[in-house]
Amino acid sequence: MDEFDIERLSDPDLSDPVLIEGLPGVGHVGKLAAEHLLEEFDAEVVRRIYSEHFPPQVTVEDGRTQLACAELYAIGDAECDLLVLTGDHQAGDGPGHYRLTDTFLDVAGSFDVGRIYALGGVPTGELVDEPDVVGAATTDDLIEDLEATGVEFRENEPAGGIVGVSGLLLGLGERRGYEAACLMGETSGYLVDPKSARAVLEILEAAIGIEIGYDSLSERADEMEEVVKRIRQMEQGAAASEEDLRYIG
Amino acid sequence: MDEFDIERLSDPDLSDPVLIEGLPGVGHVGKLAAEHLLEEFDAEVVRRIYSEHFPPQVTVEDGRTQLACAELYAIGDAECDLLVLTGDHQAGDGPGHYRLTDTFLDVAGSFDVGRIYALGGVPTGELVDEPDVVGAATTDDLIEDLEATGVEFRENEPAGGIVGVSGLLLGLGERRGYEAACLMGETSGYLVDPKSARAVLEILEAAIGIEIGYDSLSERADEMEEVVKRIRQMEQGAAASEEDLRYIG
Amino acid sequence: MDEFDIERLSDPDLSDPVLIEGLPGVGHVGKLAAEHLLEEFDAEVVRRIYSEHFPPQVTVEDGRTQLACAELYAIGDAECDLLVLTGDHQAGDGPGHYRLTDTFLDVAGSFDVGRIYALGGVPTGELVDEPDVVGAATTDDLIEDLEATGVEFRENEPAGGIVGVSGLLLGLGERRGYEAACLMGETSGYLVDPKSARAVLEILEAAIGIEIGYDSLSERADEMEEVVKRIRQMEQGAAASEEDLRYIG
Amino acid sequence: MDEFDIERLSDPDLSDPVLIEGLPGVGHVGKLAAEHLLEEFDAEVVRRIYSEHFPPQVTVEDGRTQLACAELYAIGDAECDLLVLTGDHQAGDGPGHYRLTDTFLDVAGSFDVGRIYALGGVPTGELVDEPDVVGAATTDDLIEDLEATGVEFRENEPAGGIVGVSGLLLGLGERRGYEAACLMGETSGYLVDPKSARAVLEILEAAIGIEIGYDSLSERADEMEEVVKRIRQMEQGAAASEEDLRYIG
Repeated sequence: MDEFDIERLSDPDLSDPVLIEGLPGVGHVGKLAAEHLLEEFDAEVVRRIYSEHFPPQVTVEDGRTQLACAELYAIGDAECDLLVLTGDHQAGDGPGHYRLTDTFLDVAGSFDVGRIYALGGVPTGELVDEPDVVGAATTDDLIEDLEATGVEFRENEPAGGIVGVSGLLLGLGERRGYEAACLMGETSGYLVDPKSARAVLEILEAAIGIEIGYDSLSERADEMEEVVKRIRQMEQGAAASEEDLRYIG
Repeated sequence: MDEFDIERLSDPDLSDPVLIEGLPGVGHVGKLAAEHLLEEFDAEVVRRIYSEHFPPQVTVEDGRTQLACAELYAIGDAECDLLVLTGDHQAGDGPGHYRLTDTFLDVAGSFDVGRIYALGGVPTGELVDEPDVVGAATTDDLIEDLEATGVEFRENEPAGGIVGVSGLLLGLGERRGYEAACLMGETSGYLVDPKSARAVLEILEAAIGIEIGYDSLSERADEMEEVVKRIRQMEQGAAASEEDLRYIG
Repeated sequence: MDEFDIERLSDPDLSDPVLIEGLPGVGHVGKLAAEHLLEEFDAEVVRRIYSEHFPPQVTVEDGRTQLACAELYAIGDAECDLLVLTGDHQAGDGPGHYRLTDTFLDVAGSFDVGRIYALGGVPTGELVDEPDVVGAATTDDLIEDLEATGVEFRENEPAGGIVGVSGLLLGLGERRGYEAACLMGETSGYLVDPKSARAVLEILEAAIGIEIGYDSLSERADEMEEVVKRIRQMEQGAAASEEDLRYIG
Repeated sequence: MDEFDIERLSDPDLSDPVLIEGLPGVGHVGKLAAEHLLEEFDAEVVRRIYSEHFPPQVTVEDGRTQLACAELYAIGDAECDLLVLTGDHQAGDGPGHYRLTDTFLDVAGSFDVGRIYALGGVPTGELVDEPDVVGAATTDDLIEDLEATGVEFRENEPAGGIVGVSGLLLGLGERRGYEAACLMGETSGYLVDPKSARAVLEILEAAIGIEIGYDSLSERADEMEEVVKRIRQMEQGAAASEEDLRYIG
């Protein structure tokens, strides 16, 4: 295998597609949001990207192995065409993050992607009832547009910048002339957070003009709500059984 | 030395050989199994693979040094021809794992290898009396075949996927068109486990139609059994002398 | 992006400029000093240097993202022309430090830089009232010159050598024929230290014959002085509120 | 700078020189031994080898900086010509160890080196009064020769093999056809150990037929002896002042 190996599975015609990225990160917010899009729409996998910069492993599901990769899906039945980038891994080394993101941008470029939205979470350190969505973007115009949809742009947040593929999609994307934004749902940082993922997706709906159903995500959010309730009881002295914690990511 | 240096020691004619890999890992199950094959059959070293991705060291045996390497042995006196890949090291870096496994596949390809079996252990966290063998494979056909020999394919196991050369032999092997399986003996994860290695080899016998003697492995298993018994006594409060622990890997 | 991506923003005519480096390090002394120069003089950014050897991240300020980079500024209104190299990051890997510094030297060379001054801190492990400036240089002549301005050259200091870009600007700079010195202000190592930065800049004034105003730095030093006073009170048993610690870097 | 930068300082005519390596390691035995050779004989530095695989730093001595490097010295006034390789650093990454050692072998080859002796220590975990010298070599002939001089070749020692440049000089050296040995003085592993360095050098005298004076090393050994005595007193309950520990490396 070369440094990168791109498996070409399909080449649908897409009109000015928007790239949505949701890889693993804080509260799995970005990945949950991306997976929810794949569930709600008619998504077709178009590329698998393998790389020696991913961890040296295969995942196993029902005995079948799958080499570590990122997957790019096309969605043609939303109000605007989408390319959704997701997967189970970030790069394992610093230069690998740069090279992987460059490869993602190459692939996105081959589909004439317009805007880029990187989805993720921003850790607050405490449980959040009504998560806001914090933003960052490559242009002032895009900041203005997103502010109108309710995204908060804060002076020094996120304090440590945006790390990993999400950050580099903006940083390297801008160097290539893309307008790109990162939408980060507030999340405790301790739990898988479908509620935060929904908050992010609701902003995305307004930003790119699509409509998303939330039935499956609501269910998952309700389950987590139950977990959160028990954790709060624990904090107040009540004991939780191990069973209660099995949803904690 | 280049990134890889392949020492060519012999080029026997092999008919549709099966590649068996057993490098160090959980419970040393894979390595024990591979070494047992080398002991039971008439094995001839055919390649040594050196690489800067191995740890920067030599092993020393009776004063003689040997640069870190993986060794490929040919076995021609079993019911089917075998190539056994073993050694003392995995790669020291992530991309190195990919490149090393690619090199192993190149070498295997030069012998027209058919199927690939990666042998290893799956940690259970507790002592196992009758280790099952958990499997993972690149095709549904192979899963079906192996299920018939008693291999268990479980929904979410191994949970963390398969890491290192074993995992990549399947992942990268599949990209090259090989059918490949990983056979993982259940093992505590705390001890070198010849009993688990035997369980894996018994599956291999059925899977590729060879017969293996187990005298030497049984002896080693009996020794470990003795260690395990003492550990269990320890857990029940009895003290073990340091001497008892010298077999712990 | 290639391994390095140099953004060319301006090409002012500079006469025999001196390169001043101040990247993050002990007590942020070098970075504070460099930033103070940018504030006091009329500085113009001339190059941004991006690299896969920087951490994979963007910084965010008021919602606008900036890909990790180092920035080179030109100052033409001081008594001698200056090029000031600063940024938020060092390299993330060892070879990356070498390659990044080589790139910095390439860029500096394109402006016909004469001498090089790397600014930084040397940790003392305790609060310092009147920080001395410890030096290191590539030639005995330069050591002699700097000794005359009050720099201390000590037998075994800094004990661990000089690590990172500052050290390599001297080490690699010397290999290219540059005279280069590192000026290290004594600093506790626990706090951001504007007083130490001022001590370093005062030496720089004498060494290259420029005059620097210190109003803004004095203010910051006074703030830190206040923090230090409170810490000393804490050490004597008085409690400090969390508020007091917000300046600690 | 390229991956390696070799500074050529002198090219003396040497007759069938022996390469002696002593870089930092267990008890600094190898480095102490190498430095003692440079002190006792008329040594001339012939090469400095710089590399991005060394730590990114300069050392500072009396204010003068020196980029991280390894140094090769020629000794022409011993009973046989010597090339002594020493320095303050090992490589910072695994592949770097391989590439650095390859570069050392290239340089050694340009001087038509015959045999290679890597000097080092083997940790015993306890203070040793009369350190033996444990050996490892690339050929049985060399093992036999060294056994005759008192070197011990033990079944499973050193248990973890030989790591770093010393190990690779044997491993990669053998791949190039060199006869090479590693001489490892027993040492506690906790202290800089000139006594162990002397034991190693005494074997070297016999092995290659040179005579070495030991005055300076004896002095240093006596100092350490004093430290060891105090440590033993400490172990017996007597307290040692911080002063006593300043020689501990």
